[in-house]
Amino acid sequence: MSLARQLAERVCALRYEQLPPEAIHWCKVAVLDTVGVMLAGSVEAAPGIVKEVLGLQTSSGPSLIFGTNRRVGALDAALINGTAAHALDYDNTAANMGGHVSAVMVPALIAAGEVFGSSGRDLLLAHVVGYEVGARIGRGVNFYHSEKGWHPTWTLGVFAVAAACSRLLKLSVVETETALALSTSLAGGIKANFGTMTKPLHAGECARNGLLAVLLAREGFTANPDAFEHKQGFFNVFNGPGNYDAARVLEGWGDPLDIVTPGASYKLYPCCYSAHSAIEAALNLVRRHGSFDSRAIARVDSWTAAVRLAHTDRPDPNSALDAKFSVQYCMARALLDGKVALEHFEGNAYHDPVVRDLLRRVHAVPFTGKRFSSADPFDAEVKVTLTDGRAFSTAVEYPLGRTSANPVAPEHLKAKFENCALRVLEPDAAAAASRAIGSFEEVESLRDFTRLIEPANLPR
Amino acid sequence: MSLARQLAERVCALRYEQLPPEAIHWCKVAVLDTVGVMLAGSVEAAPGIVKEVLGLQTSSGPSLIFGTNRRVGALDAALINGTAAHALDYDNTAANMGGHVSAVMVPALIAAGEVFGSSGRDLLLAHVVGYEVGARIGRGVNFYHSEKGWHPTWTLGVFAVAAACSRLLKLSVVETETALALSTSLAGGIKANFGTMTKPLHAGECARNGLLAVLLAREGFTANPDAFEHKQGFFNVFNGPGNYDAARVLEGWGDPLDIVTPGASYKLYPCCYSAHSAIEAALNLVRRHGSFDSRAIARVDSWTAAVRLAHTDRPDPNSALDAKFSVQYCMARALLDGKVALEHFEGNAYHDPVVRDLLRRVHAVPFTGKRFSSADPFDAEVKVTLTDGRAFSTAVEYPLGRTSANPVAPEHLKAKFENCALRVLEPDAAAAASRAIGSFEEVESLRDFTRLIEPANLPR
Repeated sequence: MSLARQLAERVCALRYEQLPPEAIHWCKVAVLDTVGVMLAGSVEAAPGIVKEVLGLQTSSGPSLIFGTNRRVGALDAALINGTAAHALDYDNTAANMGGHVSAVMVPALIAAGEVFGSSGRDLLLAHVVGYEVGARIGRGVNFYHSEKGWHPTWTLGVFAVAAACSRLLKLSVVETETALALSTSLAGGIKANFGTMTKPLHAGECARNGLLAVLLAREGFTANPDAFEHKQGFFNVFNGPGNYDAARVLEGWGDPLDIVTPGASYKLYPCCYSAHSAIEAALNLVRRHGSFDSRAIARVDSWTAAVRLAHTDRPDPNSALDAKFSVQYCMARALLDGKVALEHFEGNAYHDPVVRDLLRRVHAVPFTGKRFSSADPFDAEVKVTLTDGRAFSTAVEYPLGRTSANPVAPEHLKAKFENCALRVLEPDAAAAASRAIGSFEEVESLRDFTRLIEPANLPR
Repeated sequence: MSLARQLAERVCALRYEQLPPEAIHWCKVAVLDTVGVMLAGSVEAAPGIVKEVLGLQTSSGPSLIFGTNRRVGALDAALINGTAAHALDYDNTAANMGGHVSAVMVPALIAAGEVFGSSGRDLLLAHVVGYEVGARIGRGVNFYHSEKGWHPTWTLGVFAVAAACSRLLKLSVVETETALALSTSLAGGIKANFGTMTKPLHAGECARNGLLAVLLAREGFTANPDAFEHKQGFFNVFNGPGNYDAARVLEGWGDPLDIVTPGASYKLYPCCYSAHSAIEAALNLVRRHGSFDSRAIARVDSWTAAVRLAHTDRPDPNSALDAKFSVQYCMARALLDGKVALEHFEGNAYHDPVVRDLLRRVHAVPFTGKRFSSADPFDAEVKVTLTDGRAFSTAVEYPLGRTSANPVAPEHLKAKFENCALRVLEPDAAAAASRAIGSFEEVESLRDFTRLIEPANLPR
């Protein structure tokens, strides 16, 4: 039996009533976090340009463009909102998928749910199922897949979206199998484009493509059920013979559900997750020493895993987006400002002369030899040497929020949501949205939910 | 200087006045052939389903959906018409790109040209430029790229579309560079899905994505100019270190133009090009012997290159689309019917009991050792052994129409166009379209051209 079929059977079998309370809890956290970053990201340049070029002036439809009161077709909404959800690089990730998972699923699920009148409960179940599929396929292909240069947010996220939307729209096993097989041909996105607007576009295209696969499969479109294991299929083409383990995909399915253990990683800093441990180490030094004066610093050294440094070694970032992927810039901000926040990636902040001055003395190198867990290499060590000869150093194994065992406090996530949502919503609307997500299983129709988050003052 | 920049400079430098007459001739042939198969393909199931799921009921726009009188946004039109252009697998290919080239460019160029009021001359120049880019990048990555399982129609065609549309819309060098770099993240499609509706969808997505990259770049979207040669860029991620030669991309640029020499391959049979040599060998045997009676055939043996057989070895095709990729089915049809035509891939023709009976005795194996040209391995040998002991065999090095040096006669291409166009157009409209393409450099606006091919009777 094809892998696509075996996955499809599992996707279709799970019922809401079988979900443990933790799964529902973590799904609500994911929805809150994603809706927040999607609202905040909606005013960024990348989704703004995508919206412009789609030529939607004369279009209308059922699905809300976040941050506006315009409604368009579900695929266009998924593309625009998915790009918005990842525009700030502030959205959650699934460790086993190795990419951003809710930023691709939630926009597609909301856009499709508005068409079909799905409920909050439908969305929560779909999100659990999609998360499981994305994370499980990730176990089969990572980290080779990710290190090679694929952006798993799209190359694996597309299966999460396809599985989630199949479940939301109650597709049959055969239709779900087709949607998953078709998605092997709708995966793309390479890491060379990290640090540019093309990275958030990956999330938008992923949301659109996974939903497209489902809508096509639902109408009888065809794909090869063997598209994963075929000699010219997903595993061999994307990873190559010998570089994956298909058996790991189904091994221990749902036990525990991946969204519960290890759970998604949540971000407290709006930049690449691979820089977060170094930021936390730097912030720990600030807690000990107080914010540093740039002139007092002789040099900063950091060590991170080579696979993290591959895309975050940017000693001289040349745009706000580039700065989000510069471990050097992020550490400099942490040491000088005692925080890493949205304003550090706005306008010309990346070009601040004091930071630029310090950047010349920041040295980021990979660890040599084994450090901490090699299966999930997130450890970082940071050392600050002052001109007076004193030196401070500390190490961090995982950033706070990496797993459900080391969670960010709920009040921090709520504050992050408000901070994000207030970029486009009035406080009343932001509070109403937060409340609705808190009891999302009682939302009867996603159409009711999105009416809550239409801005009163119609920006743009 | 980045490869994307060097390509962009060449894309922007070429002027219509510099084109040799042969280039203009072959572009008109490409447009005629592509418009024909796009019209014929428009009534196939795959583009029909794509059209349905896009949710265009309330949309309008400037760009025609071929085979209808509906007009929508350019990206949606490119997607639907690109899927139609490849739905019959009857469209041309570029040998050096290793894929279908005009089926991805022409729908995007017409859809965009209708928005911007481009002329026939603009389109011809853009088609030459895009063809050159697709074929040149192909020289750098093939055949490893194609053998691995990528579908170059999309993975390389997206650069052809991006280059062509950049030129059509008169983008600057920097914008063109961005469009090409962005396209590395919009390439996809694997051969596992050959023989299903997902294959023509690859062409539609390619047309849409290349145009999307251009529209985004035109509005200031960003991508990494080094996205081809980056350590996690197109060459390393899609081919892998050691499996490409970037220097070949610019070597001998435009001298001669690839659309002139070797030129595109045109199809006389509506099925996978990798089966065409075996079909011609079989038809040559029919010319010698007359059509065969299935019961008189003891066995049929064919030898083709392993890289061709990898996706055409389908002894038991289970759908009309699957049959298009079955060298066994195509040979059986050629031997029994003395032709391979559209009707052999319609309805349940693939399940004809006489053909099925013969299929059990058809044996397709790869050549062992070197045969003919290993750089472009299209050779086939077919042997028919009769029950009375007689045996007939013949070999074909290249199918007719493979290069401009071995062209299909113009009257055959014209007949093919008419046969295709009459699936949706009245004879007068088909003749008017054919005439307009014959002097395409005089078409002042592509809007005028598409008005010629709106069907009078509004099918579907």
